[in-house]
Amino acid sequence: MEIAILLFDRLTALDALGPYEVLSRVPGNRIRLVAKEPGLVRTDNASPLGLMADEPISAVERPDVLVVPGGPGEHQARQDPEVLDWVRAVHEHSRWTTSVCTGSLILGAAGLLKGLRATSHWAALEFLRDFGAEPSGERVVRQGKVITAAGVSSGIDMALELLVLEHGEAMAQAIQLAIEYDPQPPVDAGSPEKAPREVLETVRKAMSRLTR
Amino acid sequence: MEIAILLFDRLTALDALGPYEVLSRVPGNRIRLVAKEPGLVRTDNASPLGLMADEPISAVERPDVLVVPGGPGEHQARQDPEVLDWVRAVHEHSRWTTSVCTGSLILGAAGLLKGLRATSHWAALEFLRDFGAEPSGERVVRQGKVITAAGVSSGIDMALELLVLEHGEAMAQAIQLAIEYDPQPPVDAGSPEKAPREVLETVRKAMSRLTR
Repeated sequence: MEIAILLFDRLTALDALGPYEVLSRVPGNRIRLVAKEPGLVRTDNASPLGLMADEPISAVERPDVLVVPGGPGEHQARQDPEVLDWVRAVHEHSRWTTSVCTGSLILGAAGLLKGLRATSHWAALEFLRDFGAEPSGERVVRQGKVITAAGVSSGIDMALELLVLEHGEAMAQAIQLAIEYDPQPPVDAGSPEKAPREVLETVRKAMSRLTR
Repeated sequence: MEIAILLFDRLTALDALGPYEVLSRVPGNRIRLVAKEPGLVRTDNASPLGLMADEPISAVERPDVLVVPGGPGEHQARQDPEVLDWVRAVHEHSRWTTSVCTGSLILGAAGLLKGLRATSHWAALEFLRDFGAEPSGERVVRQGKVITAAGVSSGIDMALELLVLEHGEAMAQAIQLAIEYDPQPPVDAGSPEKAPREVLETVRKAMSRLTR
């Protein structure tokens, strides 16, 4: 399969790199890292990492899978008609149109989530309503060929789910084993329901800039 | 804290990017992405991703934390005296010297694992013996200030562990929540013990090139 991952300035690295790490390991898959203009994009934080977008979006017209990451830069990306036109055009022929984190707001702005259940980073879930979508707290939400995933690290689970759907369980198991994805976090606060209240409030405040 | 992440050609993206995503989110942390020569490095697979190493290793002499990722390119990296000298010099003053996946073989080649328990990607564990280390199947192994983590995705857990050690549980919980790290893989084969035997054998064969 051909998989296009959309990059843009101030994206969140792991949103894009989780699916990249999983999907790039399937024999025969080709990943195309694209941005509006080819070149280096920088991630969203105080020590911005440079990721190379090798091709312009205009060069990739019919990927089988589209992956749209999120991050603070999604706000600018979803106000760019050229980006939204491309997302819509790719969706027309895609097998799967996917997002991670606030990437779902880009899909929403492109009009692809109307009437669908969808997810996003927990701190941004309510913004999905602006695009006619019904927010869901599930980690991965599949509606037809549209798959949205929750915040940042959920793209790994979403990509494994995609392998189950496309190639069956054995392929998903093989890639999970290859990346030794046997999570053992030392704390257990990965969702708003699990986090202590004070931690939740601190992070909620820090993240309120996410969707501005 | 200042954190140096060593990049090199044919590294595994998530090895480096998991810790990056976690550690870069701590207020006040500064991440420095370094390589022997600054510039773009490419990851290890058929659709190589370009990651920017902004600085040469020579420019970063005393980081608080060193993160050494793995991937097929570790073999070349650990045969480079300049890289090994730098790793040793940094280790002398570091608070934490860490590795993900086969990055532990680079620490080993630098002589930092002698007599220590250590881990690596499951398929490469036995190679640790070449460097006088005792292989461990644990996901994250801490021995004094040396922390080694298992394959690829384990760098996320290792970095969270580092936050617990340096900043306490609340910080680790906050970052875990911010990246919504509440893993829900659709299959359960993330370790050799959990994977079906056929899957294990297939992946073992495919990975035998890892450490050549």
